[in-house]
Amino acid sequence: MEIFYSKDIDGDICRLDTDESTHCIKVLRHRTGDDISVIDGTGNLMKCRLVSDSPKKAEARILETVHGWGRHPYRLHLAVSPTKNNDRYEWFAEKACEIGVDTIIPIISEHSERRIFKTGRIAKILVSAAKQSLKGAVPEILEPVTVRDFILSNEITSGPDSGIRPLKLIAYCFEDGSHPRISIKEALNGACRPDGQDSDLLQDICIMIGPEGDFSQEEARLAYGEGFIPVHLGTSRLRTETAAVTAAEAVYFHYM
Amino acid sequence: MEIFYSKDIDGDICRLDTDESTHCIKVLRHRTGDDISVIDGTGNLMKCRLVSDSPKKAEARILETVHGWGRHPYRLHLAVSPTKNNDRYEWFAEKACEIGVDTIIPIISEHSERRIFKTGRIAKILVSAAKQSLKGAVPEILEPVTVRDFILSNEITSGPDSGIRPLKLIAYCFEDGSHPRISIKEALNGACRPDGQDSDLLQDICIMIGPEGDFSQEEARLAYGEGFIPVHLGTSRLRTETAAVTAAEAVYFHYM
Repeated sequence: MEIFYSKDIDGDICRLDTDESTHCIKVLRHRTGDDISVIDGTGNLMKCRLVSDSPKKAEARILETVHGWGRHPYRLHLAVSPTKNNDRYEWFAEKACEIGVDTIIPIISEHSERRIFKTGRIAKILVSAAKQSLKGAVPEILEPVTVRDFILSNEITSGPDSGIRPLKLIAYCFEDGSHPRISIKEALNGACRPDGQDSDLLQDICIMIGPEGDFSQEEARLAYGEGFIPVHLGTSRLRTETAAVTAAEAVYFHYM
Repeated sequence: MEIFYSKDIDGDICRLDTDESTHCIKVLRHRTGDDISVIDGTGNLMKCRLVSDSPKKAEARILETVHGWGRHPYRLHLAVSPTKNNDRYEWFAEKACEIGVDTIIPIISEHSERRIFKTGRIAKILVSAAKQSLKGAVPEILEPVTVRDFILSNEITSGPDSGIRPLKLIAYCFEDGSHPRISIKEALNGACRPDGQDSDLLQDICIMIGPEGDFSQEEARLAYGEGFIPVHLGTSRLRTETAAVTAAEAVYFHYM
């Protein structure tokens, strides 16, 4: 099933940008009258019929809209420190999208080697991954923030879109006597009911994953102070990007 | 913690090959008398003291051996069809090793585009990943076999190393009335007790993951006939390599 992406929707007409038009008209050779499927990136799948097969600006009439297409029954926000190698972060973003994630926030830790991070390529990868994994919603990649600013900001961590208190977790490798860690599985079992999902009230879950050198003690303490629960991801030592995907999988399996 | 790898063990002496010797002596500048940690790839960590700092063939005396170092409480065999793009399979192998896997078997399906598959690079990646994720055992990558031969072979699927009946699962995308699918989570919950692990009796779990076009109906039926249980990996549509990692994560979380 070939999915196209468009944010240019005007009444019952949706326009494909140059790349999508080229792919639709030149590569796949669709012609006026053909039916195509388009996602708007906010969760909707639009079943459309081509009314213009211009290879630069194809247009289609929306016949039917499916809301919450391919959505997952939770809202997951992954705050992950950049990896030394960009490919690893891009890989994590693609996989997290396939599994299910809503927001990715690059967080710069005191221990981060990479302090400058470009989100442009990640945004493109997320669109492709959403189309490929049949999801109407394209996860959002936010601009990098420091761990401190992220913890203190209420934008994500207060769970803006749900009335339910968000679950805030921080994957931390070191034991802190005053804040004993539990497994991410226990944390999810204790806080989120996988059954009885109310589509209007999704649980927000925010998980922080640190850099190779892990968060600093100060960053961890600041997170605890703001209500983040320290969790471990099991006995395996995981790279940053593997830890981030493992966190997404933990939530995916919790709601399976 | 820097880990070296050696299969050349002679009594209480272990020898590093040229690559490992260069890394140990030239890159990390270790000298005779230094203590180093070496894995033998079969599950042992050897705490050693360098007795020769030859940059081509370093030698160390074994002071102490830790058995089952970084082992997981199960034996996982992932039979995964090659991906079109080798990088994706290499990535899966690295991640599966970090999470925990014992054997990777490239299985060629009737629907496989790639029918020739080289395992050399994967074997190297598995050694690096085992060292990086602090595991004494390096997962084994077997030579490719056809799906049919794999299903009919008893080598892996009969669980040679354990007295427990192996759990055999096949991730299949299509519903077959006569063989309704359950989630991989249900299959594991029903078959494997995560508690009371007996280190001498680990549960063998074998999971088959098909190519992009999935297994053929004939391959699926053959698997059912040989005791493979059809499972799904949840509602997300996952690429082959993502499905394979998700299967490894399912087992990892089951035993967490």
